[in-house]
Amino acid sequence: MALQQSHLYREIHEQPGVLQAMLERERPVIKRLASAIRGRDIDYVVIAARGTSDNAGRYAQYLLGSVNQLMVTLATPSLYSIYKRPPRFGNALVIGISQSGKSPDIVSVLAEAHRQGALTAAITNFPDSDLGRQCEHVITLHAGEERSIAATKTYTSSLAAIAALSAELAGDEQMRTDLLVMPAKVEAELALSPQIGELTERYRYMRDCVVLGRGYNYATAFEFALKLKELTYTIAEPYSSADFMHGPLALIEHGFPALVVAPSGVLLPEMQQFMRTLKEREAEIVAISDDADTLALGRTSIALPAGVPEWLSPLTAIVPGQLFAMHLAAVRDYDPDHPRGLRKVTETR
Amino acid sequence: MALQQSHLYREIHEQPGVLQAMLERERPVIKRLASAIRGRDIDYVVIAARGTSDNAGRYAQYLLGSVNQLMVTLATPSLYSIYKRPPRFGNALVIGISQSGKSPDIVSVLAEAHRQGALTAAITNFPDSDLGRQCEHVITLHAGEERSIAATKTYTSSLAAIAALSAELAGDEQMRTDLLVMPAKVEAELALSPQIGELTERYRYMRDCVVLGRGYNYATAFEFALKLKELTYTIAEPYSSADFMHGPLALIEHGFPALVVAPSGVLLPEMQQFMRTLKEREAEIVAISDDADTLALGRTSIALPAGVPEWLSPLTAIVPGQLFAMHLAAVRDYDPDHPRGLRKVTETR
Repeated sequence: MALQQSHLYREIHEQPGVLQAMLERERPVIKRLASAIRGRDIDYVVIAARGTSDNAGRYAQYLLGSVNQLMVTLATPSLYSIYKRPPRFGNALVIGISQSGKSPDIVSVLAEAHRQGALTAAITNFPDSDLGRQCEHVITLHAGEERSIAATKTYTSSLAAIAALSAELAGDEQMRTDLLVMPAKVEAELALSPQIGELTERYRYMRDCVVLGRGYNYATAFEFALKLKELTYTIAEPYSSADFMHGPLALIEHGFPALVVAPSGVLLPEMQQFMRTLKEREAEIVAISDDADTLALGRTSIALPAGVPEWLSPLTAIVPGQLFAMHLAAVRDYDPDHPRGLRKVTETR
Repeated sequence: MALQQSHLYREIHEQPGVLQAMLERERPVIKRLASAIRGRDIDYVVIAARGTSDNAGRYAQYLLGSVNQLMVTLATPSLYSIYKRPPRFGNALVIGISQSGKSPDIVSVLAEAHRQGALTAAITNFPDSDLGRQCEHVITLHAGEERSIAATKTYTSSLAAIAALSAELAGDEQMRTDLLVMPAKVEAELALSPQIGELTERYRYMRDCVVLGRGYNYATAFEFALKLKELTYTIAEPYSSADFMHGPLALIEHGFPALVVAPSGVLLPEMQQFMRTLKEREAEIVAISDDADTLALGRTSIALPAGVPEWLSPLTAIVPGQLFAMHLAAVRDYDPDHPRGLRKVTETR
């Protein structure tokens, strides 16, 4: 089967349209949620999610933290589903993120939040799911059916939902305007697909690698690594560049592949310095950036579109990661739609 | 140099004494902190830490959550040190965990917490450090100088400090009694060192692996993986068994090494079922447990001491991980005290 006929290829390319639909159609829901957050004087947020959705939660942790001064914690579902000793939510907003809305452990966190009287919200592709029914506010991803097992369009749609919530909470028209340009920016990045396809040949026999990002793009590092694991069976470990210095740096030897996500923004000087440290140790750097000097630090480099503000960069920065993993799966003759051993809906307790 | 003469070997074996000293000498400080938490009606906790100390924070997340119903979040230091847009702490307890008390990003979180008037605490080997001086309550690890770059005794001492705080907050004498037995339990586990040394021969050429744990021992999986990376340059990725099912399971093929930490407790049936899934996919399982049936699921197995309650199991469960990594470093002729490219104090922003 040609790669172009796979669900994965089609779904990656549907992202601009999905983003646009979600941003247009969900604005009223997101406005209502923002006003409930203000009305209840919420000061912290708990997010329950697994896998790709958990990576969207990591973005929320940085974005709602830095822009909206909300403390965000990622829930530990086993406290609810297995230990059955849930923490007190107090005056928290509890958000469940799940494409299917079915994972029992995520549903159990939201059920407990509902029981305790916390403000609840779901971000899901299925508003009528168990998760959707537990929650007062339901943001729908409008991704259409996601048939590929590796999630792509539901990830970027989740990021956009979180970005829209942050903009509404901040009451910042510039943020809103910047967000509305993102479908076109994602479209521009998708045009690099053939070029990314060519450069993945070089990584045919890459058995393992690290994927590095920090701040808003800590989420991107995790999601890129997850796509590599799911689609190409590469042992790809995500790290914040700061955490990486506290021990894992010992892994780096001549030729060790380090995939670095480093778009423009306040973190860029740190990331560049970090990339120079990796270079001194002879790592093979794959640089993903919109900055020419940063791209020049890579043995291989992939350009991001210009003019994307740092807070929105995870929406475009993951796209080369999705394309890289998809093409590398094809280079390795793996089925992009059916990774070995996985099903679309994973029900964990 | 004989392994027995390394700092690492000595420090691993000092753990029972360190634990005992910390538990005896810090009880008054921990009691005062517990009473400040009750006095201010704290309902959530923010922990700032990196590397090994961050893994101690993961234990706190589960323990203070399940036993004390406190919501615990691991801080995102770059929001403080780089973005300079700190979230509001509200009525949180903010804890910094750092062996040296020097990492600028951790200090910056506590400085901001102090500025906002939050309740602050440090867990550190150096009470006179920058970190110690920022904090109202300072728990000292009493580990003596830690000269090996890979942290061991400061990790278990940090776990014990968190366990003691949980017991004080719960006002539970049984918890306190159980905790006081832990130095002897760690001592018992250390006696397995020669046996663990022999079995690491088999893993001389293991290039990568996953380390799996859940609940309280999610922390153990992370810390075991970190020791493997630092000391043996194995690409060891930690996972919760639940998260692992959401994608990374695709990595498993014949012989793929899965190191599973599964002591007795409410999670054990889940972990056993998970291990059977791994076995079906022909993973090579290294089982770490106090339960005979669970040990039998491993191709290799390491026994944990009997009679340790689940909430304290991370204190003993990490010991075979430390010993495994130390012996594997020796089997590979690496210097256990000076992993390539690392320094004892890593100062990240």
